[in-house]
Amino acid sequence: MSLVASVHVGFADRVEHRLEQLVAERPGAVAEAGGQTLRSGGKRLRPLLVSMCATEAAREGDHLVNAGCAVELVHMATLVHDDVLDAAPLRRGHPTVWQTGGRPLATATGDALFSLAFGELTGTGDIGAVSLLAAACLSLARGELLQRRQAGDPAVTEEQYLERCALKTGSLFSAAARLGARLSGVDEVDAAALGRFAEALGLAFQIADDVLDCDGDPDTTGKPLGTDLLDGTVSLPLLLAAQRDVEVRAVIARGAAPADVLPTLARVVGSGAVADARERALGLAARAARELDGVTAPIDRDALLDAVRIASDRTS
Amino acid sequence: MSLVASVHVGFADRVEHRLEQLVAERPGAVAEAGGQTLRSGGKRLRPLLVSMCATEAAREGDHLVNAGCAVELVHMATLVHDDVLDAAPLRRGHPTVWQTGGRPLATATGDALFSLAFGELTGTGDIGAVSLLAAACLSLARGELLQRRQAGDPAVTEEQYLERCALKTGSLFSAAARLGARLSGVDEVDAAALGRFAEALGLAFQIADDVLDCDGDPDTTGKPLGTDLLDGTVSLPLLLAAQRDVEVRAVIARGAAPADVLPTLARVVGSGAVADARERALGLAARAARELDGVTAPIDRDALLDAVRIASDRTS
Repeated sequence: MSLVASVHVGFADRVEHRLEQLVAERPGAVAEAGGQTLRSGGKRLRPLLVSMCATEAAREGDHLVNAGCAVELVHMATLVHDDVLDAAPLRRGHPTVWQTGGRPLATATGDALFSLAFGELTGTGDIGAVSLLAAACLSLARGELLQRRQAGDPAVTEEQYLERCALKTGSLFSAAARLGARLSGVDEVDAAALGRFAEALGLAFQIADDVLDCDGDPDTTGKPLGTDLLDGTVSLPLLLAAQRDVEVRAVIARGAAPADVLPTLARVVGSGAVADARERALGLAARAARELDGVTAPIDRDALLDAVRIASDRTS
Repeated sequence: MSLVASVHVGFADRVEHRLEQLVAERPGAVAEAGGQTLRSGGKRLRPLLVSMCATEAAREGDHLVNAGCAVELVHMATLVHDDVLDAAPLRRGHPTVWQTGGRPLATATGDALFSLAFGELTGTGDIGAVSLLAAACLSLARGELLQRRQAGDPAVTEEQYLERCALKTGSLFSAAARLGARLSGVDEVDAAALGRFAEALGLAFQIADDVLDCDGDPDTTGKPLGTDLLDGTVSLPLLLAAQRDVEVRAVIARGAAPADVLPTLARVVGSGAVADARERALGLAARAARELDGVTAPIDRDALLDAVRIASDRTS
């Protein structure tokens, strides 16, 4: 995220500092497991969105930091719970809480991170902000369920895929943007537009992620290819390829073995599905940018447009 | 809970109706799994505490119902997550979400119920109420961790046991009482006393539960004897017996098999540990009652004193 303006990097640093403090304040296992999750890093996209959708004056205050921490804590909570369900030993190269502490510790740590998020957001004194985050959390849970339900089903449609991503990725991106706007006193109309912007951005970001998993450079992404294929997650390129290639469809339906990954991904690329998924990401990025057209509030439009470019043209 | 005054039963009915509505409003799997959890019942003690610690005027309004729903939703969320960790097929004779839907559904359902709880509580418009619930949820997660950490350890002290129960049971009882008081405009001093009352009540209730698991009548409780012993939960009678009887200590340390249950429970009763645990529950009940002495707010003191008697002298 080297293209991110220093003002937002500075904001993200304040969020990071506060997150470390929040986690360290808790005694015992929650502090350890929370700290472990925090140190495993991440792009901190959601706090950055809070910052970019805020006004300069509001960004100086503490309430924006509360909101930035809250959205990141919710994101961390979902990752910790996802890792339990996936029995994932590593995330971003670091051992997961599930791996080091086991299922009970990881489940309770996720619950604790949710609680910390809501507690932190009450620091804003804004009940509407809490309501907004609660609705987003409910969407995340529904998206997680939809993902499990769609797993291994090559007949998932593009529309069903987008519904799932809107819940699982779009909802918290949107909440981050609306929290930034709301806590800056941005009016409802602009705040709603920023929410729609962030949702489209989230979808573009997710599709770019899907594409990297089919066609990225593992040296740059730091992740092996074909994770989605192996764990049954029907990503956009996979579902588009399944519509075109009976062999891809069969592999998804029966569940891919490690030996299936490279030949199947070659067929996915060969079917044109990866190129088409890239197009869809660009289309969503353009839609996101258009949502900003009518926004008159003094938020950081340039940074948001940069974020659109970065999200839809990811190499890592 | 036939001794509960009709005004509180009426309140609990309003909470129940609202909970059904809240869960049914959600589309898909969350509604199904949430409805399943709701229908499996429970004593609804936490909403009743909200009602009993409120004033008559406040009880008529919707904010108390919001709070009653929120505490019950949090309780339901923790049960759903506990059932995942325990791989429990039944709760109160009904199949658990884990059993019917599997681990991912149950994990996401628990997360969704937490989100619904916070969303519901924002209906009160009271950010302090949200903050209070968030702190209680964090305690619940810490209590859950502590319980797992203490599992199978016969050297757990009474003090460590009480710390765990204060987190795992006392914190949400206390939050329910304080929410009832706070949303009735009861002053801080009385609200704090009601919180301490409810924490002591929660501990008494938990110890009475422990006692029933060692010495209850399964026909009345609806639960087989010795569940704590079998799953490694070091309850108060078990830890007191372990301090006195090397054989009980050895069974806890090695993990009880089904054939160990009846002979070990006979030793637990024989050691006097069950009688002593009953004494401790009565002592905590008395402490709870004393907390009410200085309370001048027009809350339902008689109902609270009845609750103390019921909690510490349970047969089911």
